[in-house]
Amino acid sequence: MVRAKIIGAGGYGGVGIIEIILRHPEMEIACLVGVSDVGKNISEVWPHLRGFCDEVVVAADSPEAGPDAGADIAFFATPDGVGQAVAARELESGRRVVDYSGDFRFDNVDTYAEYARRIGRTDPHASPDLLAECAYGLTELNRSEIAAARVVGNPGCFAVGCILGLVPAVREGLIDLHGPIVCDAKTGVSGAGKKPGATFHYPERYENVSAYRLAGHQHVMEIETQLSAAAGEPVKVTFTPQVVPVTRGILSTLYAPLAAGVTQKRVEEVYRAAYDGEPFVRLRSLAEPGGTSEVRGSNLCDVAIACDERTGTFRAVAHLDNLMKGQAGSAMQNANVMFGLDETCGLNLPGSHP
Amino acid sequence: MVRAKIIGAGGYGGVGIIEIILRHPEMEIACLVGVSDVGKNISEVWPHLRGFCDEVVVAADSPEAGPDAGADIAFFATPDGVGQAVAARELESGRRVVDYSGDFRFDNVDTYAEYARRIGRTDPHASPDLLAECAYGLTELNRSEIAAARVVGNPGCFAVGCILGLVPAVREGLIDLHGPIVCDAKTGVSGAGKKPGATFHYPERYENVSAYRLAGHQHVMEIETQLSAAAGEPVKVTFTPQVVPVTRGILSTLYAPLAAGVTQKRVEEVYRAAYDGEPFVRLRSLAEPGGTSEVRGSNLCDVAIACDERTGTFRAVAHLDNLMKGQAGSAMQNANVMFGLDETCGLNLPGSHP
Amino acid sequence: MVRAKIIGAGGYGGVGIIEIILRHPEMEIACLVGVSDVGKNISEVWPHLRGFCDEVVVAADSPEAGPDAGADIAFFATPDGVGQAVAARELESGRRVVDYSGDFRFDNVDTYAEYARRIGRTDPHASPDLLAECAYGLTELNRSEIAAARVVGNPGCFAVGCILGLVPAVREGLIDLHGPIVCDAKTGVSGAGKKPGATFHYPERYENVSAYRLAGHQHVMEIETQLSAAAGEPVKVTFTPQVVPVTRGILSTLYAPLAAGVTQKRVEEVYRAAYDGEPFVRLRSLAEPGGTSEVRGSNLCDVAIACDERTGTFRAVAHLDNLMKGQAGSAMQNANVMFGLDETCGLNLPGSHP
Amino acid sequence: MVRAKIIGAGGYGGVGIIEIILRHPEMEIACLVGVSDVGKNISEVWPHLRGFCDEVVVAADSPEAGPDAGADIAFFATPDGVGQAVAARELESGRRVVDYSGDFRFDNVDTYAEYARRIGRTDPHASPDLLAECAYGLTELNRSEIAAARVVGNPGCFAVGCILGLVPAVREGLIDLHGPIVCDAKTGVSGAGKKPGATFHYPERYENVSAYRLAGHQHVMEIETQLSAAAGEPVKVTFTPQVVPVTRGILSTLYAPLAAGVTQKRVEEVYRAAYDGEPFVRLRSLAEPGGTSEVRGSNLCDVAIACDERTGTFRAVAHLDNLMKGQAGSAMQNANVMFGLDETCGLNLPGSHP
Repeated sequence: MVRAKIIGAGGYGGVGIIEIILRHPEMEIACLVGVSDVGKNISEVWPHLRGFCDEVVVAADSPEAGPDAGADIAFFATPDGVGQAVAARELESGRRVVDYSGDFRFDNVDTYAEYARRIGRTDPHASPDLLAECAYGLTELNRSEIAAARVVGNPGCFAVGCILGLVPAVREGLIDLHGPIVCDAKTGVSGAGKKPGATFHYPERYENVSAYRLAGHQHVMEIETQLSAAAGEPVKVTFTPQVVPVTRGILSTLYAPLAAGVTQKRVEEVYRAAYDGEPFVRLRSLAEPGGTSEVRGSNLCDVAIACDERTGTFRAVAHLDNLMKGQAGSAMQNANVMFGLDETCGLNLPGSHP
Repeated sequence: MVRAKIIGAGGYGGVGIIEIILRHPEMEIACLVGVSDVGKNISEVWPHLRGFCDEVVVAADSPEAGPDAGADIAFFATPDGVGQAVAARELESGRRVVDYSGDFRFDNVDTYAEYARRIGRTDPHASPDLLAECAYGLTELNRSEIAAARVVGNPGCFAVGCILGLVPAVREGLIDLHGPIVCDAKTGVSGAGKKPGATFHYPERYENVSAYRLAGHQHVMEIETQLSAAAGEPVKVTFTPQVVPVTRGILSTLYAPLAAGVTQKRVEEVYRAAYDGEPFVRLRSLAEPGGTSEVRGSNLCDVAIACDERTGTFRAVAHLDNLMKGQAGSAMQNANVMFGLDETCGLNLPGSHP
Repeated sequence: MVRAKIIGAGGYGGVGIIEIILRHPEMEIACLVGVSDVGKNISEVWPHLRGFCDEVVVAADSPEAGPDAGADIAFFATPDGVGQAVAARELESGRRVVDYSGDFRFDNVDTYAEYARRIGRTDPHASPDLLAECAYGLTELNRSEIAAARVVGNPGCFAVGCILGLVPAVREGLIDLHGPIVCDAKTGVSGAGKKPGATFHYPERYENVSAYRLAGHQHVMEIETQLSAAAGEPVKVTFTPQVVPVTRGILSTLYAPLAAGVTQKRVEEVYRAAYDGEPFVRLRSLAEPGGTSEVRGSNLCDVAIACDERTGTFRAVAHLDNLMKGQAGSAMQNANVMFGLDETCGLNLPGSHP
Repeated sequence: MVRAKIIGAGGYGGVGIIEIILRHPEMEIACLVGVSDVGKNISEVWPHLRGFCDEVVVAADSPEAGPDAGADIAFFATPDGVGQAVAARELESGRRVVDYSGDFRFDNVDTYAEYARRIGRTDPHASPDLLAECAYGLTELNRSEIAAARVVGNPGCFAVGCILGLVPAVREGLIDLHGPIVCDAKTGVSGAGKKPGATFHYPERYENVSAYRLAGHQHVMEIETQLSAAAGEPVKVTFTPQVVPVTRGILSTLYAPLAAGVTQKRVEEVYRAAYDGEPFVRLRSLAEPGGTSEVRGSNLCDVAIACDERTGTFRAVAHLDNLMKGQAGSAMQNANVMFGLDETCGLNLPGSHP
C-alpha cells in the first residue's frame, strides 16, 4: 500500500486527489495538510466526503505531517512557491513528490524565471538543484523519466491538451513550425481554484464567455518547452485563455499551417499511431469530435483531428477535465508510474453522465 | 458474480446502472437491451463509456437477451408499462427484477389504478398477480421484504426524499397527521429523462424555476401509501413538483404541524435513532443543512431537521441525487440486498466536487 | 424632469435603478454616490453601460452629492443602517427618499428591533422619528400612503411575492389563520448582492440547491407585519429561504389550510378582483402556472392559484425578478407614485426572452 | 410610424424583433405571421409578452397578412428558403424586406450555391433576380446600399463578429492575407433556435463545450465574401464553430499573421479610426477585453485588439449578443437605415446586468 501525504487538502486539487485515493486499491491517505482548515475534519471542509473520509487536517509543521507520518509520496496541491520551498524536506524523509504548480515543470532556472515573471514572481527559484532532476509530468510524453524521478512537476491544466494535441504533428513534421501556431483554449471556472473572486461570482459568470491575460499567460512557457523538445528546434505559440461557464472542462482548438502535401488522412494516421495503446487518450473523428462532457470526471483526453484542407490548416480539438487529466488525475497517473503500479489504478472509470 | 440484464440501456436510468456496475466488484453486465439504439455499441450512444463499456445494444426479443443470456437480475430502466408487460418472462428465466417505473410500487390494483390515472394510463395492470408479491424498493423501510422478493418496484425519485424525511416523524407521532402535510420538491432537469422537449431546451430552462403538474403528480400516491403504512392510518399530503436548473438533485422541504409538545431537539433524537447505522442517510444540522451538491453523484440522502418552534411547524429538508438514490443507486442498493451482497457494493463512494 | 440621486451605484441595486432611469422619459440622474468606486466612471464599474451612462461616481460627502446636486429623490441602494443614518439629511435638502433596506419597512421601534436582531444588528434605530412617518413600499398595498410619503421603505425581495400571494386570501378569510402558513421561497443568486463569497462562487453554486438561515430569516418580519395588518389580527408564517442556480428570479410557493368551504374557484375569483387593473400583477392558471423566466427583466409579479382541494390546502405560486419587482423595479414604481407620474413609467416593458 | 410585418413570430428571431418594436418610438406591428401558432395570441406563445403584446398570429396566406395589412417592411425571421420563395410578393405590396436567413446575403447565384451546399440545399435560388439587387446587411460596412435597398440580407450571427473584427485589418493591409486566418467562434445555445434537439437538451448541454460542423460551416461563405471585397482579392478563412453553455453571446477570437512591421499600437489606431462614430461598435483594451455578458441584451459588438507581437500574430476578440447584433438588433438597425430613422431607434439601451 502506497501511503500519500496531501498538502493543500482544502483546495480543489486536494479534494480531487482524495476522491481518487478513495477508489484506489493500492493507495491510502497518510495525512492531510492544510493551512486555514487545520483542526477540522476534512469532511467539514468538503461535506460530500462525510462518512467516506473524515481525517483531521493538520498543519504543515505538525508531527502528524512530519517524517514519522509513514508517507511514501507527497502530493503538493499547492500554489506556486510552496513546493520549491519545502519539497526537499519531503525527499529527505524518503518521500517522492508530485507538485501541481509550475515549480518543477522546467529543468533550468532561466526558463523558470521567464515563467515566474508571467505570474508576477520575482524571487529566484528556491531549489535550483531540484530543477535539474525533476521530470515533467505529462505521462504520455515522459513515462520512463517519471518512473525514475524523485520530483515530478505536474503539468498545467491548459498545457495538457495543447501539448497532447500538437506533439505528434510537431514530431512528425506535419505542420510548418514557423506558424502561426495557435492554441485557443476555453476553460471551466474551477481552473481558477476555490477562492471566490469578482470574476467567478455566480451572477457575473453564468452568462459570460471572456478572454483574459491576453498579454501573456504562463502556461505558454511549458507548451513551448515541450513542443520545442519534440521539434528539436525552438517553437513558439500564440495562446489565448478564455473562461466559459462550465465548472469542469477545457477545450483547446489548435491551429497551424499544414506542411506541404499533408492531408487530414495522413494526420489521422500519425495520431493513431502516436496514441495507440495509451489508456487515457482517445481519438475522435472529424464527424463526431465530442465535447468536454464526454471526458468530464475521467482522466481522459479526447483528441479530434479536423484539418481544413481547403485553407491548408492543421486543426485539432483536445478535450479534458481540468481537475482530472488537467490536475489530480495526471498527478495520480504519475504516482502510479512512479511506484510501479498499473497506470490506470484509481483512474479506470468513466465519469458520470449526465 | 451476479450478472445483470439492463433493459432501457439508452436512457439516463440505463447509463446510471451501467456506470455503477463498472465499479461494482460483484456484478457484471450480461446484456444491454434497447429500442432505438439496437445494433450500436453502447459507447456510441454514451461516448463517455468508450473504452470502459463497449457492449452492443440488442433488441428485447433477440437471443442475446433471452433465457440463455446468463443473467441473474433484470433491471427495467424503462417507462411505465414495460415491466408489467414482460417482467413475468424474466422471472420464468429464473431472474429477479428491479423495475424503475411505477409498475410494481403498489401491492393492489386499486391503488395502482389511481396512480395510473394520474399519468394518463387507463388500461388495467397487466400483471396483477405480481402486484401481490412485489416489494416496495425503498431499502431503508423494507429491507427484509426486498431481500426475499422476486420483483422490486424501485421508488419514484421524488418519493425517496419525501418518505425518508417524513416517515420517522409519522411513525413516532411527532406530527399532527391531520395536516396540512406539505412536500415542496425541487428537482433537477434529468428527472425528465433523456428525450428533448420544449420545457427542457437549454435556452428555456437555464434561468427558470417553475412549478408543474399542480393538479396532481403521480408520486403523491406512493408517498401517501408509505406514510399511511407507517402511521397505521390514512395520511394525505400536498405535493408540489418544481423544476430548477440543475441537472442532478432533488431538494424536498417537508412541513407539517408539530404534535403538541414536540421540540426540534426531540425530533432530532428520533431521526438520529431511526437512521443510526443506515449507510446512505446522513443527518445534517439546522445550522449546516447542506445542499444537493453535497450528495451529487452519490447514493446518499441527507436530511436536515429544521422545525420552526415559533409557529409549531415540523420542517425537514431532504437532499438526494435523483439519478442515484432517486433511481439507479436505489436500484443497485436493492439488488445488493436481493443477492445477499454488501448493501454498499458499487455505491461506497462520494460524488466528485465541484 | 425628476432628478435622482443614487446612493450605492456600484451594487446590483444601483445598476438596476440606473438601467431603468435610462429608459424613463421623466427621470434623469442627478448624481451617483458610491464608496469603493469613487472617482471612476460608472461605466468602468459596469462596462455594459459604456456609451449609455458614463457619469463619475462621487463620495457621499462631496459637493456634487450635496444640497446643490439638484436632486428631487434619493434612492438608497444601500445595506441596512445607511438610510437610517443619513436619510434625514436628504429630507432637509428637500428630497424624498426610497430606501432598499429594512431601515424604513416598519412603523415602530419594537418591530424594527426584532427585525434588526435577525440580521445581527443590536443598535437602536438611528432615526426613530422617521419610522413613524415612513410608508411600506409595496405599491399594490399602499398606494396612497406612498404617494404622500417623504420616506418609503422598499420591500424585501422575498417579501414581495409572499405578501402579494397571500394578502387577498388573508383579507377575505379564505384561509385558516391558525396555520401553518408556509412560505417556501427559492431565490436566484443575485439576491445576495455583488460581493463574492464562498457560497456563491460559480463552481460551488452551479449544481446546487440549498436551504439556508433556517433558524429565522429577517424577511419573515415584514411578511407577518403586512399579513397581520390585512387580517386585523396577528398572523405567523414559517418561511424557508432557498437558493437555486439562477441569477434572477424568486419563486415562492405559499401554503395554508383552506377555510371551510373555500374552493379553488372561489380563490381565483377573489384574486382576480384583488388584482384587477394592477399593471404589475398577472394571474396565471393552475394549468399554466408559468415560471420565473416569464417575468425576468420585468417589474411583474405573476401569481398562480393552485389549491389542493383534496387535502384542503390553499396554494399559490408567486414569481418575480428579485432585482426588479423585488428591488429596483419596485423602487421606481414607488418613485413614480410619489411624483405623480404614470406608475408604469420606465417599467412598461417585458423582459427579453430567452 | 413604420409598420412591420413579422414572418416567423413564434421563433427566437421573431420574439426578438417584437421586443425591440415594443420600445421603438417610430415603429409598430402590422401583423404577426406564423405557422404552428396560427390563431393563438402571441402572448400564449411567449408568455412574458402578456399585457405588452397580445396580437393574434395569422397564417401567411390570410387576408390579415396580405397586401392590405398596411405594412411598410417585412421582417423574415424564417429559415433558409422562405424568403427567396415569397419576398417578391412583399415587394409587390410595396414593402421592403429584411431577411434573417442566407437567402439574400450573396449577390450572385454561384456563391449562393456554394453556401446552399453547406446547409444541404440543392435547389437553385428561387429569386435570382433579387440576388442582383439585395444588400448585405452589416450596417457598418454597407450603410448607403442598405439605405437604398428593397431587400436586405441580414448577416449570419457568427459572421458579424468575424467580419467586424477582421475588416479594418484586411482593408488596411495589417495582416498577411495568405493566412492562415482563423476565426475561432464560441456561440451560446440560442443560436440553434427554439426547436428542441438532443444536443441542446439541458442535461446534455449544461457542462459541455463542443466543436461542431468541422467539415465546413456555411457562415464561412459570407465571411470570405466580405473580407475578399475589403481586400480586393480572394481571402480564405478557417472557421471553427463551438457551442458553450450560455444562452446569448458569441465570442470570436480572430488570428492572422501580422504584416511586416505592424504593431499592436498601429492596429489599435486603425481600428479606432475605423469605428470612430459607430454607435454599436466599442473598442476594448488589451488589459480589459470584456466578455459577452457586457454586450448581452444590447446591439453592441465589442472588439478588443490583442496582438501577440512575440509571435507576429494579429489577434482580435469580438463579442456580441447573437440574438441582437447577431440577429434582431442588426435587422432593426438595417430597418432604421432603410426608413431614414435614427439608426439607434429602439436599440439605444444597454442590456441588464447581471
